[in-house]
Amino acid sequence: MKVGVIMGSISDMPVMQAAIDILKEFGIDTEVDIVSAHRTPEKLYEYSKEAHNRGVSVIIAGAGGAAHLPGMVAAMSPLPVIGVPVKSSNSIDGWDSVLSILQMPGGVPVATVALNGAKNAGILAAQILGSHDKLVQAKIIAYKQELKNAVNKASEDLKNQQ
Amino acid sequence: MKVGVIMGSISDMPVMQAAIDILKEFGIDTEVDIVSAHRTPEKLYEYSKEAHNRGVSVIIAGAGGAAHLPGMVAAMSPLPVIGVPVKSSNSIDGWDSVLSILQMPGGVPVATVALNGAKNAGILAAQILGSHDKLVQAKIIAYKQELKNAVNKASEDLKNQQ
Amino acid sequence: MKVGVIMGSISDMPVMQAAIDILKEFGIDTEVDIVSAHRTPEKLYEYSKEAHNRGVSVIIAGAGGAAHLPGMVAAMSPLPVIGVPVKSSNSIDGWDSVLSILQMPGGVPVATVALNGAKNAGILAAQILGSHDKLVQAKIIAYKQELKNAVNKASEDLKNQQ
Amino acid sequence: MKVGVIMGSISDMPVMQAAIDILKEFGIDTEVDIVSAHRTPEKLYEYSKEAHNRGVSVIIAGAGGAAHLPGMVAAMSPLPVIGVPVKSSNSIDGWDSVLSILQMPGGVPVATVALNGAKNAGILAAQILGSHDKLVQAKIIAYKQELKNAVNKASEDLKNQQ
Amino acid sequence: MKVGVIMGSISDMPVMQAAIDILKEFGIDTEVDIVSAHRTPEKLYEYSKEAHNRGVSVIIAGAGGAAHLPGMVAAMSPLPVIGVPVKSSNSIDGWDSVLSILQMPGGVPVATVALNGAKNAGILAAQILGSHDKLVQAKIIAYKQELKNAVNKASEDLKNQQ
Amino acid sequence: MKVGVIMGSISDMPVMQAAIDILKEFGIDTEVDIVSAHRTPEKLYEYSKEAHNRGVSVIIAGAGGAAHLPGMVAAMSPLPVIGVPVKSSNSIDGWDSVLSILQMPGGVPVATVALNGAKNAGILAAQILGSHDKLVQAKIIAYKQELKNAVNKASEDLKNQQ
Amino acid sequence: MKVGVIMGSISDMPVMQAAIDILKEFGIDTEVDIVSAHRTPEKLYEYSKEAHNRGVSVIIAGAGGAAHLPGMVAAMSPLPVIGVPVKSSNSIDGWDSVLSILQMPGGVPVATVALNGAKNAGILAAQILGSHDKLVQAKIIAYKQELKNAVNKASEDLKNQQ
Amino acid sequence: MKVGVIMGSISDMPVMQAAIDILKEFGIDTEVDIVSAHRTPEKLYEYSKEAHNRGVSVIIAGAGGAAHLPGMVAAMSPLPVIGVPVKSSNSIDGWDSVLSILQMPGGVPVATVALNGAKNAGILAAQILGSHDKLVQAKIIAYKQELKNAVNKASEDLKNQQ
Repeated sequence: MKVGVIMGSISDMPVMQAAIDILKEFGIDTEVDIVSAHRTPEKLYEYSKEAHNRGVSVIIAGAGGAAHLPGMVAAMSPLPVIGVPVKSSNSIDGWDSVLSILQMPGGVPVATVALNGAKNAGILAAQILGSHDKLVQAKIIAYKQELKNAVNKASEDLKNQQ
Repeated sequence: MKVGVIMGSISDMPVMQAAIDILKEFGIDTEVDIVSAHRTPEKLYEYSKEAHNRGVSVIIAGAGGAAHLPGMVAAMSPLPVIGVPVKSSNSIDGWDSVLSILQMPGGVPVATVALNGAKNAGILAAQILGSHDKLVQAKIIAYKQELKNAVNKASEDLKNQQ
Repeated sequence: MKVGVIMGSISDMPVMQAAIDILKEFGIDTEVDIVSAHRTPEKLYEYSKEAHNRGVSVIIAGAGGAAHLPGMVAAMSPLPVIGVPVKSSNSIDGWDSVLSILQMPGGVPVATVALNGAKNAGILAAQILGSHDKLVQAKIIAYKQELKNAVNKASEDLKNQQ
Repeated sequence: MKVGVIMGSISDMPVMQAAIDILKEFGIDTEVDIVSAHRTPEKLYEYSKEAHNRGVSVIIAGAGGAAHLPGMVAAMSPLPVIGVPVKSSNSIDGWDSVLSILQMPGGVPVATVALNGAKNAGILAAQILGSHDKLVQAKIIAYKQELKNAVNKASEDLKNQQ
Repeated sequence: MKVGVIMGSISDMPVMQAAIDILKEFGIDTEVDIVSAHRTPEKLYEYSKEAHNRGVSVIIAGAGGAAHLPGMVAAMSPLPVIGVPVKSSNSIDGWDSVLSILQMPGGVPVATVALNGAKNAGILAAQILGSHDKLVQAKIIAYKQELKNAVNKASEDLKNQQ
Repeated sequence: MKVGVIMGSISDMPVMQAAIDILKEFGIDTEVDIVSAHRTPEKLYEYSKEAHNRGVSVIIAGAGGAAHLPGMVAAMSPLPVIGVPVKSSNSIDGWDSVLSILQMPGGVPVATVALNGAKNAGILAAQILGSHDKLVQAKIIAYKQELKNAVNKASEDLKNQQ
Repeated sequence: MKVGVIMGSISDMPVMQAAIDILKEFGIDTEVDIVSAHRTPEKLYEYSKEAHNRGVSVIIAGAGGAAHLPGMVAAMSPLPVIGVPVKSSNSIDGWDSVLSILQMPGGVPVATVALNGAKNAGILAAQILGSHDKLVQAKIIAYKQELKNAVNKASEDLKNQQ
Repeated sequence: MKVGVIMGSISDMPVMQAAIDILKEFGIDTEVDIVSAHRTPEKLYEYSKEAHNRGVSVIIAGAGGAAHLPGMVAAMSPLPVIGVPVKSSNSIDGWDSVLSILQMPGGVPVATVALNGAKNAGILAAQILGSHDKLVQAKIIAYKQELKNAVNKASEDLKNQQ
């Protein structure tokens, strides 16, 4: 049980790190690599064809601009693929990344998360694993409780300030 | 092992039927209901809190306009939630549905598919189940082969016409 | 007679403060809290169901990204709900906040103001109270006069400079 | 206690009728008129200055394209003004109507509802009146119950069909 | 023969100054003032109704956000009105200013220039005056020659650098 | 005193006819032609260089898609050029026409009107001529009165219906 | 000397036919096929790697939605690749097709033409061949003359009608 | 065999330099100049009419805002024209540059690359030359190999860091 985390360029790392971090927090193994749809197409083929055979259960793929990596992996892998639209430097406000990951044709879905939403990609991967692993699911439930506690704490602080 | 398919209004059914159909094709049970975030908030609460306790493994939620159903279910359920942005009649070209499902805050992901992409939501649900069920995964692999065959057939037809 | 001011996260406070300030200027009581649709859904339910029973007349709710707070409060409260789209850090230029608050389905309105328009949310709340309270309405009329005076003053300064 | 419903052109009537109908359903009096910001500016002036003096409590103003009617009424009236962006024939997908009503400057709010959302404008007007009139508020609560019942009915029908 | 230059707020001055400067360069008199559609509606009425009677031939009006000033002046003045969409601080990337000035209904045109295009507004005003004043037209022709010379100079510099 | 009306293609005629009609209504001569920036660049050159020398005072240019005609005429003619963005068949919702006419660089303005706003282009041309011809200006004033009368008539009809 | 014309689906044929037709008109051989990036990834690989070895000089690739075909071919072929964004049925107004073809990262260009602009893709392919083949270039020059003649004819017809 | 690189203004040079640099890297001659469609229309005519007669094989044209340079050159030259949309200072997020270059009418294509994508314009020009010059094509193939090597190197570095 492992989550593959790939990205189109090392420059996507500052965004994608959040997926790796949250998965570590959930105690889930990750396998991180750079796979560029446009610059290493053969590696893309191999990665997509083989990931499920070596124990990867979910793939998280981040890319920016005309972002073809998540969709191309989804074309070749039977695994669920989570796409992270990265707002890269010459992006048109992120619309290009979002639309080229989200708007996949019938037959080849990509589970798209928010622009730069790598943390949510990690949580979604955990939820997918948790859908048949009660231990992981319990961690998700605990994580939601932590989110709640943090808001309640902030609410109390606010009231005390007034 | 069951997929919950919910939608905000019966008027979303023509779009959402495609998710139900493809899941049936994969031999996966579905549980279909109408749950409106804005008109039946208590039912939303109950549904989200209980689904994972009665054997639902993945939730597909479709909604249009300011589409809060997928995100609110994701707020309360530990399951992976797949959101289908529906292009409803007074939608601003579907942008409202897409953005209000996709752009979830850190901590609460929704696996968003393309505008009106209910079929892909069904396939993604199957891929999620298939990530730990080799039988379902085999069906996904077979389905991809069918897609390929259909394109190859169309390619041959085209060449024969010329 | 009180205005409830809530926001999805303490990080919305710098924007939402303007609503609190202008209501104070009008001498209207506010009750400020953090209520997150996605992280504290139970609190959302309680808040929305109870606000009108403890003297709140109007609710101002600010949120960013896929902003579900104003619409979900409007789903459960009989009070007028004013929505403030907040331009949060990973927002797609604010379009997500605006559309997920504005484009509510028939039956459940949110009175939406401009992006980051918390000050106007406060004034609108005052106008709502003023619609049946001549004292508050008189303050609105006086406030409009002040706006006019400030423009006239700027106009005179400009002419004197020339 | 009366709601003023105005629109920029008789061609907006098919959209705006929904506001009038729902207000009638709530038993609230309406005063309907055509007031064009661009073609009858003097009438706009008189209307805005006088409405609150003859018993109007809330104004609903609908307009399309570069829609200046709601904002200009709000500039001159102390009443809460609800703006309905109308998707007119040469509109650029409704974006012009939405943005020219929503994005009002600090000091002069317009309570904007969804594109063509006249029904919601009517409900919002009722909620505003209901914020200090328990009889109207009770009708709002009953109306929400009806919405819920309709969804529950649709849900049952769906289950019976299966 | 005079050009009226008005703006909705003193904060628009840094943008609008370019119109004043280029008109001065063409030797055309300007009359500069602040007229806010939303904060000084009576002044708006007076200005629009009277400008052509005191020798103003063209009006340049700049405003941001839900920018109603140019269109409202055009509603009441028989003069050609040039609208300058100003990209103000809380604007949604300038789209609101552009659309609320450009998309005027049939019968009431505003001659819209580019976002923040105050310089071009000044040149357009000069061209309008020049359409019946050969002296001004000659200046326009000379100005175009200067633009050409500057490009040719830059072209030569570039070639010399290589 | 004559207005030149040109368009990029005969397929723009159904939209551009409205400019010709309203100018005829004002008793202003028009000179209509097809001048394509992309298919007849030499004619574009001649037209732009010569129009002001044969009595044309204002040019109205309509074009769709990547609409270069208005801007290129403005580059070569000293006359005020009014641009009409035409929503052509493969246009991306008209955004291409609007932006490629509106967003001219400093030095070369185009007076842009609304999408398909040929009627307003005609009125604007009349206002430009009217800025130094009191007879034409009187017609503009009368035209505005007619607009007002039509709204007042519609308002009365509406009241009689109730 | 041959132009490869490929498309992601047979449903793109009505749009793509225009490329084939115009190339036939120029007497240039085409090789037409269906190659789906998402459904036949291996064929995509082979096609892209081999096309230049069997006499194809330019590739035209059309696709809609999250359109990865042109960019993936460009990733693997040394040939110039022309991308045609197709406005498919569930496309978000064509923006998805345009951005996922146009916004390619540094290193891997796609020569993008207008939405549904298959005819222009054919002409561009001819211009590329014509850049080193004077016979083809002469046909381009003749074609431009025909375009001019057609406009001049329409212009004469228009004048005769008046 | 030479590539013409032109731009509308010297201020486009920082973006356009990347085209010149990459062409130099491929050993391809460039001829760089400033040609403004709007400020030097006569030079535009001469340049476009003559480039192919003095050995230019491909033209790269960069411009921002209402960017008419690439399309106007394409109107008059039989050569393939590559358009680079430049994100200039008052651009509306680059949409104006992109749409006014991309959306050319049938008959006059511009090979558009990504916003600020001058480097890709250079590579595309090399690919065009390479389509009939095996030496240049070999350099393209080698360049693609370098891109691949760089990604593989980054991938190894990443693995070594872990």
